[in-house]
Amino acid sequence: MSSLSPKQNGHASSSRSPLSSASTSPPEDDDEGLDLASGLLEEEDPLDENGAGTLDQGASFKRIQQPTTKPSLASRFLSSPFSRSRNASPSPLVRPSGANPTTNTILSYLNNPVNGGANLQDTKDANGLDWYVEGPGRRVGYDDLTAIDWIYEYNKERIRLRQLTTNAPGLLGQLKQVVDGSQLWIVLVATGIAVGSIAAGIDIASDWMGDLKQGVCSNVENGGKFYLSRPFCCWGVNSYAQCHDWRTWSTLMGVVNKGGSYLIEYIAFVLLSVLFAGCASVLVNRFSLYAKQSGIPEIKTVLGGFVIRRFLGTWTLIVKSLGLCLAVASGMWLGKEGPLVHVACCCANVFMKLFSPSVINANEARKRETFSAAAASGISVAFGSPIGGVLFSLEQLSYYFPDKTMWASFVCAMVAAVTLQAFDPFRTGKLVLYQVTYHSGWHAFELVPFALIGIIGGLYGAMFIKLNMRIASFRTSARNPFLRRPVVEVLLVALVTALISFPITFLRAQSSELVEYLFAECRDIQDDYLGLCKAGIANTGVIFTLLISAIIGFALATVTFGLQVPAGILLPSMAVGALYGRVVGLVVELWQRQHPDFILFAACEPDVPCVTPGTYAVIGAASALAGATRMTVSIVVIMFELTGALTYVLPIMIAVMLSKWVGDAFGKRGIYESWIHFQGYPFLDNKLDDAVIPDVPVKNIMTRVEDLVCITATGHSIQTLQDLLKDHHYRGFPVIMSPRESTLLGYISRTELLYALDAATSPVGRALPGETDCYFAHQPLVDPTTTLDLRPWMDQTPITLSSRTSFQLTKDMFEKLGLRFVIFTDRGELAGLLTKKDLWFVLNEGDLDAAGKGYVGGVLREEVDGREDQRGLLGGEEEDERDSRRGEG
Amino acid sequence: MSSLSPKQNGHASSSRSPLSSASTSPPEDDDEGLDLASGLLEEEDPLDENGAGTLDQGASFKRIQQPTTKPSLASRFLSSPFSRSRNASPSPLVRPSGANPTTNTILSYLNNPVNGGANLQDTKDANGLDWYVEGPGRRVGYDDLTAIDWIYEYNKERIRLRQLTTNAPGLLGQLKQVVDGSQLWIVLVATGIAVGSIAAGIDIASDWMGDLKQGVCSNVENGGKFYLSRPFCCWGVNSYAQCHDWRTWSTLMGVVNKGGSYLIEYIAFVLLSVLFAGCASVLVNRFSLYAKQSGIPEIKTVLGGFVIRRFLGTWTLIVKSLGLCLAVASGMWLGKEGPLVHVACCCANVFMKLFSPSVINANEARKRETFSAAAASGISVAFGSPIGGVLFSLEQLSYYFPDKTMWASFVCAMVAAVTLQAFDPFRTGKLVLYQVTYHSGWHAFELVPFALIGIIGGLYGAMFIKLNMRIASFRTSARNPFLRRPVVEVLLVALVTALISFPITFLRAQSSELVEYLFAECRDIQDDYLGLCKAGIANTGVIFTLLISAIIGFALATVTFGLQVPAGILLPSMAVGALYGRVVGLVVELWQRQHPDFILFAACEPDVPCVTPGTYAVIGAASALAGATRMTVSIVVIMFELTGALTYVLPIMIAVMLSKWVGDAFGKRGIYESWIHFQGYPFLDNKLDDAVIPDVPVKNIMTRVEDLVCITATGHSIQTLQDLLKDHHYRGFPVIMSPRESTLLGYISRTELLYALDAATSPVGRALPGETDCYFAHQPLVDPTTTLDLRPWMDQTPITLSSRTSFQLTKDMFEKLGLRFVIFTDRGELAGLLTKKDLWFVLNEGDLDAAGKGYVGGVLREEVDGREDQRGLLGGEEEDERDSRRGEG
Repeated sequence: MSSLSPKQNGHASSSRSPLSSASTSPPEDDDEGLDLASGLLEEEDPLDENGAGTLDQGASFKRIQQPTTKPSLASRFLSSPFSRSRNASPSPLVRPSGANPTTNTILSYLNNPVNGGANLQDTKDANGLDWYVEGPGRRVGYDDLTAIDWIYEYNKERIRLRQLTTNAPGLLGQLKQVVDGSQLWIVLVATGIAVGSIAAGIDIASDWMGDLKQGVCSNVENGGKFYLSRPFCCWGVNSYAQCHDWRTWSTLMGVVNKGGSYLIEYIAFVLLSVLFAGCASVLVNRFSLYAKQSGIPEIKTVLGGFVIRRFLGTWTLIVKSLGLCLAVASGMWLGKEGPLVHVACCCANVFMKLFSPSVINANEARKRETFSAAAASGISVAFGSPIGGVLFSLEQLSYYFPDKTMWASFVCAMVAAVTLQAFDPFRTGKLVLYQVTYHSGWHAFELVPFALIGIIGGLYGAMFIKLNMRIASFRTSARNPFLRRPVVEVLLVALVTALISFPITFLRAQSSELVEYLFAECRDIQDDYLGLCKAGIANTGVIFTLLISAIIGFALATVTFGLQVPAGILLPSMAVGALYGRVVGLVVELWQRQHPDFILFAACEPDVPCVTPGTYAVIGAASALAGATRMTVSIVVIMFELTGALTYVLPIMIAVMLSKWVGDAFGKRGIYESWIHFQGYPFLDNKLDDAVIPDVPVKNIMTRVEDLVCITATGHSIQTLQDLLKDHHYRGFPVIMSPRESTLLGYISRTELLYALDAATSPVGRALPGETDCYFAHQPLVDPTTTLDLRPWMDQTPITLSSRTSFQLTKDMFEKLGLRFVIFTDRGELAGLLTKKDLWFVLNEGDLDAAGKGYVGGVLREEVDGREDQRGLLGGEEEDERDSRRGEG
Repeated sequence: MSSLSPKQNGHASSSRSPLSSASTSPPEDDDEGLDLASGLLEEEDPLDENGAGTLDQGASFKRIQQPTTKPSLASRFLSSPFSRSRNASPSPLVRPSGANPTTNTILSYLNNPVNGGANLQDTKDANGLDWYVEGPGRRVGYDDLTAIDWIYEYNKERIRLRQLTTNAPGLLGQLKQVVDGSQLWIVLVATGIAVGSIAAGIDIASDWMGDLKQGVCSNVENGGKFYLSRPFCCWGVNSYAQCHDWRTWSTLMGVVNKGGSYLIEYIAFVLLSVLFAGCASVLVNRFSLYAKQSGIPEIKTVLGGFVIRRFLGTWTLIVKSLGLCLAVASGMWLGKEGPLVHVACCCANVFMKLFSPSVINANEARKRETFSAAAASGISVAFGSPIGGVLFSLEQLSYYFPDKTMWASFVCAMVAAVTLQAFDPFRTGKLVLYQVTYHSGWHAFELVPFALIGIIGGLYGAMFIKLNMRIASFRTSARNPFLRRPVVEVLLVALVTALISFPITFLRAQSSELVEYLFAECRDIQDDYLGLCKAGIANTGVIFTLLISAIIGFALATVTFGLQVPAGILLPSMAVGALYGRVVGLVVELWQRQHPDFILFAACEPDVPCVTPGTYAVIGAASALAGATRMTVSIVVIMFELTGALTYVLPIMIAVMLSKWVGDAFGKRGIYESWIHFQGYPFLDNKLDDAVIPDVPVKNIMTRVEDLVCITATGHSIQTLQDLLKDHHYRGFPVIMSPRESTLLGYISRTELLYALDAATSPVGRALPGETDCYFAHQPLVDPTTTLDLRPWMDQTPITLSSRTSFQLTKDMFEKLGLRFVIFTDRGELAGLLTKKDLWFVLNEGDLDAAGKGYVGGVLREEVDGREDQRGLLGGEEEDERDSRRGEG
């Protein structure tokens, strides 16, 4: 588990090496992804690199200007897995770490500020003309694994739009605006179509491969239609038993002996399961580590305003799609629903890159809006539930979800659903996956078992999250024998799963098939090949089997979610829920049949089935989903769209609500939030319980001015600033008037300062000597040709608050405005600073000790590099120093 | 039209009299409503009061402490219409305006700070103990027609919750928390049930009354089932023509002559229409002016953080519900959909008051969350579309819509829908109102007519809004002959509507009936009593009639929306849309039938109907809705839930999108936003086009320090402060260090300052003399017993920004944080101030001249009282001075 390597390395103090190696990799286009993945390809063990000289390679994470020649399409998309070879070749664009950037790179910018447009994000923002002297200052692009500045991005977009309107009036301007506006829609429609197609492909492939574990279609007369899955092979045949085209492995091998055929089928089943799982895992491990698991925690983090490069790249898309087919086919307890959201976001990212000079691609905020919209299409095709997809994106994933994004999501989700319906992979002609028509409504007394199911759902969710997180931390601990062999672990889990599943019919079926089966009413099931519907007292056996299946399913899902394969948790939860729901339903049915005169059952009509166990399964599935994810509206809408059962919306709502309440009593975090927390992603959860927030003025929490590294407006030369940058690896520095007068003038980021200094000293640029004076305030008497005015690069209007402001308000500001940091002043004088990560740390501190201290922050704290000793010298503090300090104690 | 009276009064400078009369009315509990309504009851013409001495009655709008004895339930709910009589009786609680508050009121507070809890909102916030010296300061409640402070309200709630958690640990504490948390759900479920019941009642009553215009049910054998509407009277009969129980007025009168019976039916129809409309209008005019129109613009304003008292009161609820039955029955071109949202919010408000010591009722922010949730139930029952209701509330109404509100809306909407389904007013057993099953899908070539319908929808919307607003401004102008006789205007419109509608069968039907009819496929219509389905070329006549109907409907809807009756615009828009949609559908069908070999129609199968005109009607209805309201997702979901036609979602989406685009090209505001703009409600539209926002630093826009009335930290006595309050009627004052040193110390609101001074001088309180020194900063050497420290009442940490901040960022802050004002500083020194109304004014300024200057702000600018001359003397500026200044030029 690459992201966990820092912990292995002892402590966070030297944890940045995997990333510093990443930072020295050649410049590539902005794949959302991490070189970490490729770094791991070079060496199976990233820890070996830690001792190397990477630590001294300087702290430059700045991305470098791309060559002006556009890369070819292919190289633009398919870069990541081959970065090793590129790494080896000497690239003129690699800036020697710590030294100045290659000068021609800078010059190519200076001479050609809007260079290509394709790389707008990486270039300085040439638009902000009126910000030159006053305002937020010019920007260089974002480093990997940093937070974006929402305000800045939206402002950039506004200025761009205004320029578009004013620069080209008349018909041409109108046309330009239309073209500009239509880009988003083209991307979304293309994404929708692509997601629909990919989902259809995954459905068909995984069904075929899943059935392959049991046999193959081989029509004796027509000679081999091996490419058909069992339902298509047996199309038109009433019962699988009568389907002669379908050959199990034992019949194919000519074994007729009952025991022998069972054994052969067993072996084939297990072997193929393990093979599929192994392939999926190797794919992920070899080509794109980001394709593992569901991806939803990471998407939440990205949407929350964090840059994870290459996470949504083309390779991730390919590996995730292929791996998903294999993983689903392997029969492990995982679902394709969550990963499809990741696939959808990858699609959107790829299409945005096709519009390379695209305005969407250039704006991190708009990109995130597009991802929010695309995410809806993932759920839309996974459950055949477009509205549910939109609400899922709104409720679970998105951080900012303006109205226009809702419409965009809706369009994308609908296009995807219609595309999937056009492909019609199941040949049912319906978008609704598990169409159920219940022949009777529910009775008031049934609310009691429904409520019980809700409570079980909450318990299931709480237990699942607790166990899964415990397994996840075991997995990263040194005691884990598979620590460096994730593929072996996957193989082992697949083996165990297959060994257990085969003997139990309910588990042998694919999860989606099982869910559909459990939802159905017995009289609608024509071919009861799983043996679910038995009459009267024979049901006790079924109840027992279902219960065992639920428990085994729960255990397997707990182990499986977190393995290094593409794996979602939605469908397994639904399956477990449907199993225990059906159990409750069967018990109630049995009870009612045995004691029809019991007072509770007075409402039942005689001679008519009173209890429909299928509905209990639906409610159970909803409750399990609610317990695991803590969503509400989306689940009800998804279940409604999934089954078309409007009658049962009220019981579903009650069960979902109870499940959420019970689950919340054990811990507020859903499974995705738990993983975010576990992985240490800097995600500010805006659904946090208010009681967690300390009720203190922010001055007790902020980094005080005494601990900050500040830059004074005058008195610095290029050399002293470069030394400062070398000594302090903070993300930015407040600028004050003078050491005696701490009036706040502004804030300058590391990246911008570094860029400005490099540009000024570059021999083909201004070629200023190191002793050149730098200043951050108006200096009327200096010669501008021999000094360096750094004001254009300084944010002169950073958001400031009074240091007596309450912490809650500060948190609100961070959340609602999407800030990266807030500076605190007292009557104009700098009093302190709080960064998003500080805030995140404070909010998550309560659980730190439990979760294993020193770990949190993990891979994302690349900029903490063990220089705590510097604190207090010049008064040093920056974006992450607080982290490291807290990490100590 | 009460809200328009200020304009009549010449200019805004003296426009506050109707409200100042309101402010001197006796204290009542916090009905969301305005005494304005009752003020109008006293005098038919509010203008007569303007000349009276009300202007000099002082500017105190402060609400006064309630008596400690709780009012009875009845008086709590039913206060407004009888306020006149109360007004007349001398109440000991009426504070003589401008004088000190009755001392025992204050003392009762001082002695018993949490007095009753019921009036928490009106009392000072006793919770903020830790804010005493530093922080946002203590607060008195909100005045009517002022903006709420979202940050403060949410913080109050947080502190309350924390106290709840910490004060009662253990099981009791858990129980208390559960009770606390369940209040919201009880309110919502009760609201859902009430809304469902009211909707069922309105459906039944308006159907019966509507049919009464044509005849009555009188079973000859069984002797009179007059209370049945026509569908129930003729239940089981295939065709209305064969229904003998149903007697038209002419048969009842025994007229058999064809001409005579037509005449009699015509007269009965017209008379009853006018009677119903007149009753509705008189009800509104007499008992609750707030019940007029749809109420959605006002709800948007309230949800945006504005206090309009009594707008959601019990009387409004009763009058709106009754008036709605009558108005719908009158057959005018209005719908019950929008008003049902208002009804739902009223229900929620009433139920919140039942929990009088309720925590929800005490918190303006949580109240608004509850209203957002309740609003969803209105649309849910109106269209039988619970998810559509939630999305409507999210997309159209709400300002802040956190996730938990979404779940609350969903629960409320579902409960309401299930309740309505249980009542089953139409005896269809279905929640879906206009269930349609289309027998065929759509062909690719049909996308062209669908797109055309979308464009027509956009044009319809744009024209409708333009015309309706023009009529609205004519209605308020002096040229309007019905200016002071709104009831007469309603009667006249009803008369014209009835006269035109009777001869045209499509218009004679109720709008909802018409829409259902137009949506249906011809082969599913068994009794074609409107004559819609004709074969072949005979359709040209139908096309013509439909077209005429659409145009007449459009004209009537334009005139009707804005009359003084409860009236929504959603259903009329749908009806017009369905009419023109069906026209397009019929034209295409006719064309295809005539030229089946035309290349476009190659996809049609022979001998099978290729074009389904009913689907065109559905798409037309969606496009008209989109054009008028500019919503997108909600409309698609509503149409989907309304008709159950998933197949046609894609064409509906395309039409809605085109309609919105075309409409937006003519003006960004939908009909509700236009009305908000017209009425001058201080609503910050967060969907505003970014291009409208001036790209300037905020210092060009803010009120500069030179124009502000500031209070210095020292040097004031009680008397001078009271004089200041008397001289300047601003809502608050920044506090600075001294006249020479303008370092910002904080901000104090008028209400809090007034309260603090009154409490200090009250003889039963501290009884300080007028010359007592007041200070706003720490004074170590003064005697606290003989001086007045006003710091507890001052917000010591107001939100400040640099004056060089861009205007956009300032707007973002206002929107996202829900601020009332922002103070600008330069390095700690006060530089200026911008209030929400200033911001609103700047954003709406562009359209002011067109909309009639001097008017905007209208009724809501009560605090502008023509004292412009004071500006610049002491340097005066406050929340609304800017308005008045702009009003001048």
